[in-house]
Amino acid sequence: MPDPPRQDPSQYESVNWPDQFNVSQKRWRVNRKTVCPPLPVRWLALHCASEGCSDGPSGDVVGLRADMDALPIEEETGARWASTIKGVMHACGHDGHTAMLLGSARELAQTREFNGTAVVVFQPAEEGGGGGKAMLDDGLMDRFGIDEIYAMHTEPALAIGQFATTIGPFGASVDSFKIRIDGKGAHGAEPQDGIDPLVVGANILLALQTIVSRNVHPRQCAVVTVGWLNAGKAGNVIPPFAEMGGTTRTFDPIVRNLIEARVFAIAEKVAEAYGGESHRQLQAHVPAIGQSRS
Amino acid sequence: MPDPPRQDPSQYESVNWPDQFNVSQKRWRVNRKTVCPPLPVRWLALHCASEGCSDGPSGDVVGLRADMDALPIEEETGARWASTIKGVMHACGHDGHTAMLLGSARELAQTREFNGTAVVVFQPAEEGGGGGKAMLDDGLMDRFGIDEIYAMHTEPALAIGQFATTIGPFGASVDSFKIRIDGKGAHGAEPQDGIDPLVVGANILLALQTIVSRNVHPRQCAVVTVGWLNAGKAGNVIPPFAEMGGTTRTFDPIVRNLIEARVFAIAEKVAEAYGGESHRQLQAHVPAIGQSRS
Repeated sequence: MPDPPRQDPSQYESVNWPDQFNVSQKRWRVNRKTVCPPLPVRWLALHCASEGCSDGPSGDVVGLRADMDALPIEEETGARWASTIKGVMHACGHDGHTAMLLGSARELAQTREFNGTAVVVFQPAEEGGGGGKAMLDDGLMDRFGIDEIYAMHTEPALAIGQFATTIGPFGASVDSFKIRIDGKGAHGAEPQDGIDPLVVGANILLALQTIVSRNVHPRQCAVVTVGWLNAGKAGNVIPPFAEMGGTTRTFDPIVRNLIEARVFAIAEKVAEAYGGESHRQLQAHVPAIGQSRS
Repeated sequence: MPDPPRQDPSQYESVNWPDQFNVSQKRWRVNRKTVCPPLPVRWLALHCASEGCSDGPSGDVVGLRADMDALPIEEETGARWASTIKGVMHACGHDGHTAMLLGSARELAQTREFNGTAVVVFQPAEEGGGGGKAMLDDGLMDRFGIDEIYAMHTEPALAIGQFATTIGPFGASVDSFKIRIDGKGAHGAEPQDGIDPLVVGANILLALQTIVSRNVHPRQCAVVTVGWLNAGKAGNVIPPFAEMGGTTRTFDPIVRNLIEARVFAIAEKVAEAYGGESHRQLQAHVPAIGQSRS
């Protein structure tokens, strides 16, 4: 791709790709917009009516959507198309998504072998930035009168030429959480004077694993992962606090709510059991996505 | 104190204190030495025979010892004598120890109201540097023919004017350990592809607490503290490894050996139980110290 990956959704040069690829012919209209301040995301759509590209839609309006943003990962692939920006990589194949949608847009524009209107949507901030919700809140569907919209994601586990879909959810919700445990610091040799936040934290971390195994219905899908934990600096000092953070994934909104409630109930009550306190922070990101039955 | 605290035992200006305090009168001999390379510690002793300060001892030779080194702690006391070096503090009152021994040395030198020989020893590297052992290995006791040696440590829990002692051990052994747990990194939403080193680490941390409560005889003294644990950077990534470190304290060498064996057996076997591996590092520092019965 000619464009380096951007993690910060306010810095998308990607929004200029369609122009660079010469798909913005007369029969297409280009829209750029900064939606939902203070989230400085931008999206871009092209649409075309098969009958003369009038402003009003003719026939069904079908949306095609790809995501553009990168992840904070150091690219070590050595690929010809490898990221040119240190510490940022199109690690989920979003450059591929964008390229595929650009190719589709050019094909549609050149052949015009379709009826109705095609709306081509390049979504920013899929990776935790809430770009999809920002686009919807901004009225994307009403703005173009979109009847149906289609999206896809690369999946290396599938053979080339295969694709997979299903009715119902197939992209899990993504919520992140952070827990701070306040104990009481002490000399490492005087544990009776402290409240050890590492002992509290280890108990919380393990108890969180029981949410999936003990609280969620066995037929439901759910993941609770603690990805980081940091506490203390010296081996002979009981630190005053510990912090940990993680992610939860679900398909069902009921399970999603259950997990959120259990994560914080465990953190709060386990900390209290040891005489400490937990402070929680939930960053709700993206609900589960999937395909409607209609 | 006129001298800023030094954590690096190679940088003691403290060894010059006795000269500054004018205790090095003619009847005292000052010794400075770098002992036990590559440990660049220095010690200093003054000795005096009550009968004319001859080179040969006359009567008993009694040693008095104080420690001089600082700790890596930011001093926030605002005291008049606060550390003038950022990040280093005489946090265990070692400046007090040194001042007390200097005062004693001056008093002894001025009054000379004692029989035999007094050897005044300023010990570097008490805080984990093994300065005491280095001095002994260097032959301190034989060099001066020391018959008895006395040491003390400040104890804020005692009222002013009180001191405490006992026959047997009263300064615990200090051993530090570090454990690295190698799991297998994975996407936070694909836990089945990884071996979560945080789950392993939390289990090890909690199991270590059972050493004192389940393995050590209830009448024995022992402490096992994990002072720090670090793993992972992002909430949605299962990290490949976790590291933790801590300290153990005992009075009895048998308990000391038991704890060392249990710490690493727990780390190794718990890690193996989850399909991971643990790598251990033991830094044995200081055995228990105490008062002999004779």
